[in-house]
Amino acid sequence: MRTQVAIIGGGPSGLLLAQLLQRRGIDSIVLERKTKDYVLARIRAGVLEQGLVGLLEEAGCADRLHAEGFSHDGTLIAYGDEMFRIDFKEHTGTPVIVYGQTEVTRDLYEAREKAGGPIAFNVEDVVIHGADTDTPHVTYTVDGTTQRVDCDFIAGCDGFHGISRKTIPADLRREYEKVYPFGWLGILSETPPVSHELIYSNTPRGFALASMRNENLCRYYIQCSVDDSIEDWSDDAFWDEFKKRLPADMAAKLVTGPSIEKSIAPLRSFVTEPMRWGRLFLCGDAAHIVPPTGAKGLNTAASDVHYLYNGLREFYETGSADGIDAYSANALSRVWKAERFSWWFSSLMHRYPDQSDFDQRMQIAELEFLRSNKAAQKAMAENYVGLPY
Amino acid sequence: MRTQVAIIGGGPSGLLLAQLLQRRGIDSIVLERKTKDYVLARIRAGVLEQGLVGLLEEAGCADRLHAEGFSHDGTLIAYGDEMFRIDFKEHTGTPVIVYGQTEVTRDLYEAREKAGGPIAFNVEDVVIHGADTDTPHVTYTVDGTTQRVDCDFIAGCDGFHGISRKTIPADLRREYEKVYPFGWLGILSETPPVSHELIYSNTPRGFALASMRNENLCRYYIQCSVDDSIEDWSDDAFWDEFKKRLPADMAAKLVTGPSIEKSIAPLRSFVTEPMRWGRLFLCGDAAHIVPPTGAKGLNTAASDVHYLYNGLREFYETGSADGIDAYSANALSRVWKAERFSWWFSSLMHRYPDQSDFDQRMQIAELEFLRSNKAAQKAMAENYVGLPY
Repeated sequence: MRTQVAIIGGGPSGLLLAQLLQRRGIDSIVLERKTKDYVLARIRAGVLEQGLVGLLEEAGCADRLHAEGFSHDGTLIAYGDEMFRIDFKEHTGTPVIVYGQTEVTRDLYEAREKAGGPIAFNVEDVVIHGADTDTPHVTYTVDGTTQRVDCDFIAGCDGFHGISRKTIPADLRREYEKVYPFGWLGILSETPPVSHELIYSNTPRGFALASMRNENLCRYYIQCSVDDSIEDWSDDAFWDEFKKRLPADMAAKLVTGPSIEKSIAPLRSFVTEPMRWGRLFLCGDAAHIVPPTGAKGLNTAASDVHYLYNGLREFYETGSADGIDAYSANALSRVWKAERFSWWFSSLMHRYPDQSDFDQRMQIAELEFLRSNKAAQKAMAENYVGLPY
Repeated sequence: MRTQVAIIGGGPSGLLLAQLLQRRGIDSIVLERKTKDYVLARIRAGVLEQGLVGLLEEAGCADRLHAEGFSHDGTLIAYGDEMFRIDFKEHTGTPVIVYGQTEVTRDLYEAREKAGGPIAFNVEDVVIHGADTDTPHVTYTVDGTTQRVDCDFIAGCDGFHGISRKTIPADLRREYEKVYPFGWLGILSETPPVSHELIYSNTPRGFALASMRNENLCRYYIQCSVDDSIEDWSDDAFWDEFKKRLPADMAAKLVTGPSIEKSIAPLRSFVTEPMRWGRLFLCGDAAHIVPPTGAKGLNTAASDVHYLYNGLREFYETGSADGIDAYSANALSRVWKAERFSWWFSSLMHRYPDQSDFDQRMQIAELEFLRSNKAAQKAMAENYVGLPY
């Protein structure tokens, strides 16, 4: 077959790009390694910047988000039993929207299906050919049969482990990486949230995060060892530890219950440069990973989609390649800012194995400075709600 | 002899405290281990916060500062050949004053001599007795003769290596320390400054700082190895390296000349808690050290002097011990903020031996964020000109 844009990866970035292009009459096919059910079973963050909300609106996929999402005008930051609030509305005029990434993906699939846009699931052996020529194509197999898609452009939305990044010759790539010496143990629980707004908590026992999905669904996390496995953590053990990492007044009102999902995720910062090779454009986790602190993963993928979508649209509508030529530089400029924010917020909130007493006091001093200084709060809020595209 | 406040250490903190107390009719003696000439030969930073300027005014020692000091409304920050400005006036309404610490000390000595306040030089074997009683005293020897000073209070202004801190029993102290893996090589040169405003420069070769004292006197620094000695660095070698660490347009207009002073200083962050033990109060470097990046050393000592002076004045004028009882907590609250700023600014600007490519990109991302974000600039400016007492 022939299409205009071959999109590798059926996660939220690929689907969002497909939907945005489709609304402008630009054809694409989405190639997904797994099934739809598999993709929708992934639990991810649920804090959306306005920029992403705007793209979902433009893609015609924001109705349920507006009906069911929660607008958060601030977030809470705790250290020990101290707690203060960063007021997004006061400092930026903008809230964030709490709505699970899983729900975003579900809405995008529904829209894709309604529009009749092609998606191939269970694709194997995906290979990108001729990305550095004017006539690229993609081959893959489904049920043992090899398929070929000829296209103008390829969007590599296939995540950190995908083949898109690796298709760029190693000597043309430069990779930057930091692996954090801890993980996040997260549970999903059908309990009323301990707080409507998120609580990010720095304690001598390690970091904790209380986040909510709705009035009876919570997503709670604790910093854990990279060597831990979920078998090490019974629900009781989780709740016991989580409670110790909340300010006392919050811990007192915590409602516990059985977990309906439990997982451990490593924390990594990663960027590859450039994000374009010929007619191949990397998007989202294929090009960069952030630690989850501050929820920049999906939002930064969305900013890539924004630049790529507008570049492709400009190309097809006017013939100008200016937008796609500027894609890598524009996307990376914002990526590095999100990487900095996620690294800074992670560094501020976690216990590190090699941390000295002085280092710990620097965290507390920074938290106290943030608590007392309006300009620092504003800088934090501007990052949290999303820097401008 | 008997006095109200025995001040150990004849550097700027001790002298400033003595002068402030003297203007309120509170007697003190200053005990200095070295000679006045020795103290005045120490080259230190030369950026004064308005809080310190206000204290010098109150001490009657600000006339020459106002006549000869330079008001700086901003500072320049460079990375590679990029450079931007933090505008103190725009963000805080307040400038900093460039006037050498040596000159401050000279003015304080002159005032002390004019007022006839006692100073003992060349004192040896200083011992603090009964600091945890209501009747403390200090003994010391001069020319082999032991002297005794009975007093109400003791101000320990004798620096990091002094005896005051060590007089507090080790089990009552908690110390926090970070030693940085590099030093600063500084020269003083009678040349016209490359820039009126200071330039803090982050380069792949390491940090550099261009600062000025007046139209024909510069203080320039480069980050060097902790193992370097000044014999390793001829003037030519210094200028050659310094030039490579300035943005090209600045390097092109650098005027070089013979150094009239050259020294290497280590970089350290250090805090001891508490800053009071009974009737002994630690002040300045005796209690805390900051790396020189951002020039917070003298200014933070001055904030201690502010709290101690006002506490003692309240005690003598009203009989209330509230101010001196709150001294340690109030002083430390501001100390930790200055420690945080100095640590952050040092971390942002230097090359570290164990820095990964990712870490270096985080520095550049933070510099680019600072360059582009008004709130971050304001937070930086507020710290640089001095947080409120």
